[in-house]
Amino acid sequence: MRINRKRLEESMEALGRIGETPRGGLTRLALSDEDRHGRDLLVGWMRGAGLQVSVDQMGNIFGLRPGTEALPPVFMGSHADSVPTGGKYDGQLGVLCALEAIRSLDDEGRRTRHPVGMIIFTNEEGARFQPAMVGSGVMAGKIPLEDAYNARDRDGKRLGEELERIGYIGPEPCIPRPMRAYLELHIEQGPILEEEQVPVGVVEGIVAISWSRLTLHGVQDHAGPTPMRMRHDALVAAAEVVSGVREIPRQIRGNMVATVGRLDVTPNIPNAIPGRVTMSIDLRDPDEHNLSRAVGMVDRLVKAEARREGVTYELEHYWRVPRTAFDAEVVNTVERAAKSLGCGHRRILSGAGHDAQYMAAIAPTGMIFVPSRAGRSHCEEELTPMDDVEHGANTLLLAAAELAGA
Amino acid sequence: MRINRKRLEESMEALGRIGETPRGGLTRLALSDEDRHGRDLLVGWMRGAGLQVSVDQMGNIFGLRPGTEALPPVFMGSHADSVPTGGKYDGQLGVLCALEAIRSLDDEGRRTRHPVGMIIFTNEEGARFQPAMVGSGVMAGKIPLEDAYNARDRDGKRLGEELERIGYIGPEPCIPRPMRAYLELHIEQGPILEEEQVPVGVVEGIVAISWSRLTLHGVQDHAGPTPMRMRHDALVAAAEVVSGVREIPRQIRGNMVATVGRLDVTPNIPNAIPGRVTMSIDLRDPDEHNLSRAVGMVDRLVKAEARREGVTYELEHYWRVPRTAFDAEVVNTVERAAKSLGCGHRRILSGAGHDAQYMAAIAPTGMIFVPSRAGRSHCEEELTPMDDVEHGANTLLLAAAELAGA
Repeated sequence: MRINRKRLEESMEALGRIGETPRGGLTRLALSDEDRHGRDLLVGWMRGAGLQVSVDQMGNIFGLRPGTEALPPVFMGSHADSVPTGGKYDGQLGVLCALEAIRSLDDEGRRTRHPVGMIIFTNEEGARFQPAMVGSGVMAGKIPLEDAYNARDRDGKRLGEELERIGYIGPEPCIPRPMRAYLELHIEQGPILEEEQVPVGVVEGIVAISWSRLTLHGVQDHAGPTPMRMRHDALVAAAEVVSGVREIPRQIRGNMVATVGRLDVTPNIPNAIPGRVTMSIDLRDPDEHNLSRAVGMVDRLVKAEARREGVTYELEHYWRVPRTAFDAEVVNTVERAAKSLGCGHRRILSGAGHDAQYMAAIAPTGMIFVPSRAGRSHCEEELTPMDDVEHGANTLLLAAAELAGA
Repeated sequence: MRINRKRLEESMEALGRIGETPRGGLTRLALSDEDRHGRDLLVGWMRGAGLQVSVDQMGNIFGLRPGTEALPPVFMGSHADSVPTGGKYDGQLGVLCALEAIRSLDDEGRRTRHPVGMIIFTNEEGARFQPAMVGSGVMAGKIPLEDAYNARDRDGKRLGEELERIGYIGPEPCIPRPMRAYLELHIEQGPILEEEQVPVGVVEGIVAISWSRLTLHGVQDHAGPTPMRMRHDALVAAAEVVSGVREIPRQIRGNMVATVGRLDVTPNIPNAIPGRVTMSIDLRDPDEHNLSRAVGMVDRLVKAEARREGVTYELEHYWRVPRTAFDAEVVNTVERAAKSLGCGHRRILSGAGHDAQYMAAIAPTGMIFVPSRAGRSHCEEELTPMDDVEHGANTLLLAAAELAGA
């Protein structure tokens, strides 16, 4: 039993056109018009494949193919939103491989004891609304529904209202549901599989993640007649924090990564000393203890730099996802599937957060990685060769079929 | 002969309501709806004072009170646009003191040999459209009219079209016109007058100014699975440039100031390594030679930091205004006026650019400074005590009257 490579490629192309950027990337922000069009296309395909489609309060979309027995389903899934000027593989690929796996079961007329389904999660990226992975987070009971609804984008629009506006606020409660397993195929977004020329990563777990928000308050003033000695420049303090955050992984060693991805200056004009800067700090480590050490280092760094420049600040560590180990049985099943295909595979840890991280709290969960060219993602250059996509999709199909009792 | 303090205060309050912020500051960006409303109010007042009003191609507004002879006019003026969340004194005060001086000549029925007029310059701040001082820059022949029209704001709107939209693209050519003198009252925007408790600054000239634009191109990638060793983070390089720019005045010594006021990150989300950063660099020094040295230091700094992080860049020094010395006769006249009032005064150099800087190239020019509380400006806390405003306005009135042959 194998997936239909040509059909998968066609669906990747069709969905990739919705929100396509001039340079061949993708901008399909959560709950935007492009997100709605993408969802509509997917739901049409799901209905066309005979799936029973439903939507929950968080806009998560479910499609179910009945099993021969009244047992909990095996779900496959991922997300369909992207970052701004992102690529056509992150998220979208996992959703389309799930759909392709179900279509392939149909091609073969293969019945399964457990139902087999797919899930499209809302706002995985956290690009427009923070935090990330909010659809799965609410489902797993880790984020209150009201908090998710109240998240606001830069224009002050509420997530809840945007969900309603695009017509994807569903009637079903967003709560844990019985599942035989949850499987997610995703691009690696790192360099390892490509460097080792291995098409399939058997994901054992996900690193721990911490997100912080820092606001520095300086004294806004004219950039000309204000002597250097009188300045309290929020951006000068912010620059020292950016440099200091970059140094933290060097001090912690191992595989920690630390990133300031977002930084906004007020009033942000050439001839005013910046009065306020807000920034994000993203820390990740396979080891919970290292992550806690790094958070402490951020506390001390910000305090020291704020004092040095004479500015005040608020620092909030507002989101933390613990180190996640996936289910041993599911991981072994994925590994067996890759092995039976005869393609190269290796066990791997994910450095990126995924909906699978929250799903692991409420269902036996595993993931399949496929290589990212040059390790790159969250950019327009994102690419996975189609041969690798095919190996990954077949691994997903065989693992899901085995878990569902084909 | 003295100005009418109460009338001046009332006009300051009325104009200050247009674009007022909740915290009592002002946001009246050039060629915005607020700018139009402010201009309309001023033009109404000017017509009410019997002035002959005209508008040139750059939207600069002129109001003229005839003299008794066919001689070139004495103009007073400033600008009516503000920075975002700026204050109610920068620019607006100079325009209203000019109007008040003319009204006071009328109160006394005082005739002058030269006509006396006022000018409201377009887009002095450079907050919405760069560069700054564009209305006077075009008039002085230092900025081509087409370049000014083609300046775009962050939303891509052209200055020329916005000028037309608010109805202030006039028929008169924007070229040098004969002037007996140009006088501008402005807030100091620095700490000296307040520290020395002197209400009137007799401005001798303006420091040299250089504006640069830097774009750093890194590699946009995912903040999670991208190892630190593979990163080319545009914001990390930018942070080093911000820190380095801060150090330049320490190395140059003297009265140099250096500021990064604007910085924009792309894609600017928590979980993507910044792929692009653009920033402004503002350098000022009373000494041309020091300024040139500082520009060279920026060149070397950017080159070194870009190489260190493995990013590419474009650096453009796109605007430079030379050290300006004001006209000795005009400066002496201002000094005599302050002296005759019996109020404290001192000679002073301006650290901020003003329309007077360009006007000095085409007319005998001088400026009057009044104190800024805590030296602050370009912020909502901007304040000049009314006693100081009154001294400044009377100095302007007496100096203009003397130059016009009252």
